[in-house]
Amino acid sequence: MSLVNHQILLASRPAAEPTPENFKLVEAPVPTAEELAEGQVLVRNHFLSLDPYMRGRMSDSKSYAEPQPLDAVMIGGTVGEVVASKHPRFDVGDAVVCMGGWQEYSLIDASQRGAITKVDTRQIPLSAYLGAVGMPGVTGWYGLVKIIEPKAGETVVVSAASGAVGSVVGQLAKARGCRVVGIAGGPDKCRYVTEELGFDACLDHKALTDLRSFSAALKAAAPNGIDGCFENVGGLGLDAVMLRMNAFGRIAFCGMIAGYSGQPIPMANPSLILVSRLKLQGFIVSEHPEVWPEAMQELGGMVATGRMKFRESVAEGIASAPEAFLGLLKGKNFGKQLVKLV
Amino acid sequence: MSLVNHQILLASRPAAEPTPENFKLVEAPVPTAEELAEGQVLVRNHFLSLDPYMRGRMSDSKSYAEPQPLDAVMIGGTVGEVVASKHPRFDVGDAVVCMGGWQEYSLIDASQRGAITKVDTRQIPLSAYLGAVGMPGVTGWYGLVKIIEPKAGETVVVSAASGAVGSVVGQLAKARGCRVVGIAGGPDKCRYVTEELGFDACLDHKALTDLRSFSAALKAAAPNGIDGCFENVGGLGLDAVMLRMNAFGRIAFCGMIAGYSGQPIPMANPSLILVSRLKLQGFIVSEHPEVWPEAMQELGGMVATGRMKFRESVAEGIASAPEAFLGLLKGKNFGKQLVKLV
Repeated sequence: MSLVNHQILLASRPAAEPTPENFKLVEAPVPTAEELAEGQVLVRNHFLSLDPYMRGRMSDSKSYAEPQPLDAVMIGGTVGEVVASKHPRFDVGDAVVCMGGWQEYSLIDASQRGAITKVDTRQIPLSAYLGAVGMPGVTGWYGLVKIIEPKAGETVVVSAASGAVGSVVGQLAKARGCRVVGIAGGPDKCRYVTEELGFDACLDHKALTDLRSFSAALKAAAPNGIDGCFENVGGLGLDAVMLRMNAFGRIAFCGMIAGYSGQPIPMANPSLILVSRLKLQGFIVSEHPEVWPEAMQELGGMVATGRMKFRESVAEGIASAPEAFLGLLKGKNFGKQLVKLV
Repeated sequence: MSLVNHQILLASRPAAEPTPENFKLVEAPVPTAEELAEGQVLVRNHFLSLDPYMRGRMSDSKSYAEPQPLDAVMIGGTVGEVVASKHPRFDVGDAVVCMGGWQEYSLIDASQRGAITKVDTRQIPLSAYLGAVGMPGVTGWYGLVKIIEPKAGETVVVSAASGAVGSVVGQLAKARGCRVVGIAGGPDKCRYVTEELGFDACLDHKALTDLRSFSAALKAAAPNGIDGCFENVGGLGLDAVMLRMNAFGRIAFCGMIAGYSGQPIPMANPSLILVSRLKLQGFIVSEHPEVWPEAMQELGGMVATGRMKFRESVAEGIASAPEAFLGLLKGKNFGKQLVKLV
């Protein structure tokens, strides 16, 4: 009797905020080892990564990537173990990271460059390859190191500071001698950001609901002004940061999650780009594969030696993925959002 | 009997739009040659330059420069001739460019680095040193060459295209093999931009009063999308340009004249910075003196050989400066706005 693969498909596109009805849980047979074609590898996924970028793929409006097709398995990064292989570089039992999608088993064409990568779990837990030493970690590394280019003594602000990307950015900036101010949602996250991750300060954006109070809180937390900002959220926080930016400040645009569902949120005062001679730059980490070796060396080293801390929110079972994803869009997760599949 | 120096002072700061009452015409004695201190040079100004940056100096809100003091001569660039000198490098009769201010005669401390510069008027008219081969020209050169960094075949959009800065940007971009689309106010300016300056197309922003029509016009004029934008205006045109920017596009923020008097004009959709991986960068040319020699070589060569065209709006007499300046803020000038003082 063949094994069953539980999968989540995109059933419909959201009009505004996504709902559970946009997703559909289905069953499909798992191929047997004999059914694999040459070059294929069958992976049993242990963890699925949930990430804000998936919200963009659910819509078919203009974005940097093709929309997720309807009635197909939702895309997503996974880590797991090889359970069958017809590729010479992969053996049963290998720990791997791949774009396995929202499902329990994934058939991967290992001959495609970058489609699947073996990982070393002796000093780094498997799930971390979806977080601090995976795409979110390299995202943080790229935006900080290549766009913000912080110097020791400068002040860097990081929004969504307790999240998978933000927590990496802040710890990398601290390692470079910066003053680091986080922005996170709620006192628990803020306490974690300062006490566990070692940021110098953290603002609770839930308590800062207008531009004046947000700007005043930033002024107190960043008395010398802001030189760099890693932006994951947009909206009011971005407007407040721009008011406090020093001349020649740099803002790396990684995410604008505040406006992902609904109307775009305007930038209140773009003339500050001129007044403060700012550089604002958007980026997508997958377009910069050349930085992976350097970024992974620093991130892997810090995680293996305990100098890079991270936290995970783990949902249990593939059926929980839609709800966990909708929670992520609302900031309900605390740290890297994963779905445990085994 | 001593000569009279007519001067324009800043009498009061504007609440919103500046008015003629913000300025005051006064008379002051012109020092005699004997009254000069060591190192001083007396210049009889032939032309005063009027520029949008002066609007910012009239206010005392946060900006990149100190506000213009009240009851002092308005700052401004001038060209003229030396009429008395106690500095060994300057002789009576020399043609010079300096920050002479809104007045007929200026006493300059020539020992201050960069305060006054001799210019060569054999192939280049004196007034051009306030335009295409002066601060506006180098401004255009810096934003295009150092921030937009255009490649042949790319499309560059220039707002305020018939102005002192915009006309230089477009001609430099054409010389680099770009498709160049201007934005200007009114059919006369647009015709000049395409027929005289050689831009490939020019949009009349007065006929494009909503985002949809502006974006559609840009789509028609820039069928391959926009790779670079030199922004002098901001507002609706900037929003429309951002919608049509290609991936990895660059926007140089030189001016935001649309919002100079009144509330800041928001940017409608900053998430496009991320979606299209844009770079937006503000700059002030005076902070980059290192580029002057290279920029002046290209600009001077093009003007001297007729490959760089420019146009001037000339007001007559110092008393006409306030009205000419207020007209400049409303786009009433056509090309570089000057005041002729002799």
